Amino acid sequence: MKTISIAKGDGIGPEIMNATLAIIKASGAAVNFEEVQLGKEVYLSGNTSGITPEAWESIRRNKVLLKAPITTPQGGGYKSLNVTMRKTLGLYANVRPCASLHPYVTTKHPDMDVVIVRENEEDLYAGIEHQQTPDVVQCLKLISRPGCEKIIRYAFEYARYNNRKKVTCFSKDNIMKQTDGLFHKIYNEVAQEYPDIEKEHWIVDIGAAKVADSPEHFDVIVMPNLYGDIISDIAAQITGSVGMAGSANIGESVAMFEAIHGSAPDIAGQKIANPSGLLRGAIMMLNHIGENEAAQSIHNAWLLTLEQGIHTADIFKENISSRKVNTEEFAHAVIANM
Amino acid sequence: MKTISIAKGDGIGPEIMNATLAIIKASGAAVNFEEVQLGKEVYLSGNTSGITPEAWESIRRNKVLLKAPITTPQGGGYKSLNVTMRKTLGLYANVRPCASLHPYVTTKHPDMDVVIVRENEEDLYAGIEHQQTPDVVQCLKLISRPGCEKIIRYAFEYARYNNRKKVTCFSKDNIMKQTDGLFHKIYNEVAQEYPDIEKEHWIVDIGAAKVADSPEHFDVIVMPNLYGDIISDIAAQITGSVGMAGSANIGESVAMFEAIHGSAPDIAGQKIANPSGLLRGAIMMLNHIGENEAAQSIHNAWLLTLEQGIHTADIFKENISSRKVNTEEFAHAVIANM
Ligand SMILES: CC(C)[C@H](C(=O)O)[C@@H](O)C(=O)O
Ligand SMILES: CC(C)[C@H](C(=O)O)[C@@H](O)C(=O)O
Repeated sequence: MKTISIAKGDGIGPEIMNATLAIIKASGAAVNFEEVQLGKEVYLSGNTSGITPEAWESIRRNKVLLKAPITTPQGGGYKSLNVTMRKTLGLYANVRPCASLHPYVTTKHPDMDVVIVRENEEDLYAGIEHQQTPDVVQCLKLISRPGCEKIIRYAFEYARYNNRKKVTCFSKDNIMKQTDGLFHKIYNEVAQEYPDIEKEHWIVDIGAAKVADSPEHFDVIVMPNLYGDIISDIAAQITGSVGMAGSANIGESVAMFEAIHGSAPDIAGQKIANPSGLLRGAIMMLNHIGENEAAQSIHNAWLLTLEQGIHTADIFKENISSRKVNTEEFAHAVIANM
Repeated sequence: MKTISIAKGDGIGPEIMNATLAIIKASGAAVNFEEVQLGKEVYLSGNTSGITPEAWESIRRNKVLLKAPITTPQGGGYKSLNVTMRKTLGLYANVRPCASLHPYVTTKHPDMDVVIVRENEEDLYAGIEHQQTPDVVQCLKLISRPGCEKIIRYAFEYARYNNRKKVTCFSKDNIMKQTDGLFHKIYNEVAQEYPDIEKEHWIVDIGAAKVADSPEHFDVIVMPNLYGDIISDIAAQITGSVGMAGSANIGESVAMFEAIHGSAPDIAGQKIANPSGLLRGAIMMLNHIGENEAAQSIHNAWLLTLEQGIHTADIFKENISSRKVNTEEFAHAVIANM
């Protein structure tokens, strides 16, 4: 029995987490859950890190966290907990698969099947900002050789292990010759060790345009942190909804799994949220800990549910063979299909 | 008679510039052209700035430059001439209209009509990079209050003058609280002076996703330099082709007009390139200098050409009412329609 740390998050977090946990339990996966406290309540209790010492302790002990989206309170200089956790736990790789579910989910891009591999610790996310004069502020973009090597090697290993054919690199080294230049250079170096995998490079502006227009061109794409943030949202959204994509944050010792979307406070408490993003994070988690059978059976049941036209409001389209359900009904349908 | 400085550029530059100049001449606009030297040849002659003193002199005298895309040679630490010119001439506003031409140009987004107003001098484009240790490199993202005020006020003035209803701001101030935070804060301040124009803010990741998926949601969008680089390429591409969009770089005294695409060396010399991007830059230029009638008649003739199904290879689709033409034939068709 493996114990997983669980954070229920804020906004729609608890609703989608409860749905996800019910599905995991029904799958027969050999896992226990240990709930930890982090997010809005913790911030507002005066702990400006947003996470309790007990939560750190639990995550470090269990080495796996399933985390619902959280809300960072506005103002007061609260630091993003997502970023704190990625950095503190050394979660260097953020993996975001974005594949079309055509014809079950409406999309303009039926053939897309892209995996964004996003560097997750460096770049402008290093969090080094300061005020130079009253009128001028700066933020430091940091890129290191070991950071580049780790993420780029991860992307190629991921491609090889998952039978992917191509790893594309995005950077903007026509402008940032040293920082993005280093990322591109190390990509070229590492790629030589993987002659079986096709390599390709795009400047990030026109690369992003290609993703938005013809995502089926791409397979695995590796890129620095901020580009990965922007382009994974684009790729997820054009599969049909940003609410459908899960995300794995992988470190040497700990891994964190989540939905790629936010806590959507505007619809919180209405029980209409789509649990699919978090559920897909959970499926990635089950594979990560070796519960491959449970992962597969959840994935199949979830797909079957979509095939049956059972949809939450965000992706529901009025249609003779579709049924609009709430969060719990969706979870029950997945469980019934298992 | 107004004199315009002209740079023919590299790659497909001379082909599309000759087509564009022929069309301007045929429009009867009261303009003369003065050719200046900048780009690849100048770089390779040993002038690492890529631009001759005579070119600076001409541009400063004429105050208006129409520039074809150029190629910066790889390696050798050549600085981007685009960036040098934007900074040296104080071209703080980069305006990039991206509207669908449905049904004449195939697009998945028939109702889009977005104008990206991109800050054009600051951000990571300030060009301040250095190596901290052999393994760590840095780039400085710079944001200033005067820089933000100028571009945000420009966006609202543009909206008012062009009868636009909404100015949206994109930033990532959940992470970059000081730099992007300042941009967002000044947006809120300036927006108060324009109560007639709707305001709205998106975090750039999910904002980019919304542009890629539902661009018809947006009207004018104002944002820092690098986001503007990425998002204007996305917006242009999903109208049908990045080859269709023009760009105005506006300063207090000088303005530069160009296509948003690059010099496409792979198809250079074949005379198949689409001159539309540069032509639309030229139309913006004619409006800028008060040649509104010529601008309008070129625009109408160009639209009519597309309506007639006369297309260069990049946007041509096999179709009973379409004809594939080369660069010169396209220009002749526009002239014939004038
Ligand atoms: C919430 C935010 C800090 C986070 C990020 O910027 O990384 C989110 O957008 C994501 O992509 O996981
Ligand atoms: C060529 C390059 C320097 C330029 C930029 O990054 O601004 C281009 O992509 C653009 O958008 O005009």
